Amino acid sequence: MREVYHEELSSFRARLVELTQSAHDALVRATRAVLDTDRELAELVIADDQTLAAEHHELDQRAIGLLARQQPVARDLRLIVAGLRMSADLARMGTLARHVAELAAQRYPSEVVPGSLRPTITAMGAVAGRLAGGARDAMLSWAPDAAAELDRDDDELDHLQALLYRQLLSGAEGVDIATAMDVTLLGRYYERYADHAVSLAKRVSYVAGARVRSSGTGRLGVEP
Amino acid sequence: MREVYHEELSSFRARLVELTQSAHDALVRATRAVLDTDRELAELVIADDQTLAAEHHELDQRAIGLLARQQPVARDLRLIVAGLRMSADLARMGTLARHVAELAAQRYPSEVVPGSLRPTITAMGAVAGRLAGGARDAMLSWAPDAAAELDRDDDELDHLQALLYRQLLSGAEGVDIATAMDVTLLGRYYERYADHAVSLAKRVSYVAGARVRSSGTGRLGVEP
Repeated sequence: MREVYHEELSSFRARLVELTQSAHDALVRATRAVLDTDRELAELVIADDQTLAAEHHELDQRAIGLLARQQPVARDLRLIVAGLRMSADLARMGTLARHVAELAAQRYPSEVVPGSLRPTITAMGAVAGRLAGGARDAMLSWAPDAAAELDRDDDELDHLQALLYRQLLSGAEGVDIATAMDVTLLGRYYERYADHAVSLAKRVSYVAGARVRSSGTGRLGVEP
Repeated sequence: MREVYHEELSSFRARLVELTQSAHDALVRATRAVLDTDRELAELVIADDQTLAAEHHELDQRAIGLLARQQPVARDLRLIVAGLRMSADLARMGTLARHVAELAAQRYPSEVVPGSLRPTITAMGAVAGRLAGGARDAMLSWAPDAAAELDRDDDELDHLQALLYRQLLSGAEGVDIATAMDVTLLGRYYERYADHAVSLAKRVSYVAGARVRSSGTGRLGVEP
């Protein structure tokens, strides 16, 4: 019975890593679709998000099943509660990647990002992808300081978003009202995606920190 | 012991209702701040969001404490898991109201919304506020069909957002690039706020439906 339980927990953890990889891949593809005006790739990302939604639902069911059947305490409880929240973060990241892809699909064959803004969007896509990769790596190591390592990239993404908005405002070439609206939303999608990636890593730190501390204090709490 | 437990559950439920009321009030005030170019009111909403974050943290702690100490099953487990997610929805609604208020504060003494777009933003604020009020009422009745009643308002908000974007694109009076960027984000904040309000009501339906069914099947699951 306990062995099955530990297998279930371990598989739950592995599933979180896989879904983080999927959220990473979705954003990388969506960014390529929007920069390359690639409708086929955009539609692939959009279709994949449907599958992802079902997979998150399945992960949530597992978490609730574990809570109901095993009545976990201490660090296991923290892992499962954190996992439920991570599942929500991951689902949102997938949806934000889909929104990026939807812009590419809706504007096709026009391009969403004028040439003057391509370097900024390229950089935002790269940093956001790195954040998701960092969250995935954090889940592999379960290191208590996992979140700290993502801070620099998160700051960089905020700076890139501010730069993007300044570029739009300062009359960058090829920017009309329609472009400004699309690119404003695009910037917002990347920023939200990055926030969720940082949130993932924070939850890993919370579970990992708890693991270190749990034998000492047994304190229960949750990161904001 | 069981009596304390039921009191804790009942107080947990009551707290969800209060926090929904707070999220409602924050949006109503933020909308007034943005339409009346009222910096003082905007700053009140911004300051309140800090308090709200602490209150959500406290609610999460309660939920995790209940899971750890009481190891609830069936409908109580569903209520607490749903409550954790509702807390996340509510925190997000508060932050979105803050973002609306931040636009008012950052642009002051300029107005964010030009006269030509005021009716649309006024309507979006009213519908979003009604959705939050509907979610609160659903939590008071815990009726299984609570979510269905919010669908019409959610559709209306989507239509208003589409109208807003059409107005921006069709060269409504007073719309330059900067205005288009602000108002695009404003529209997005209302739309996200409304989605979270609908999500709250769906979780109520999930808990309420489970209560009706739980004696029969004992089935555990979770709405997407």
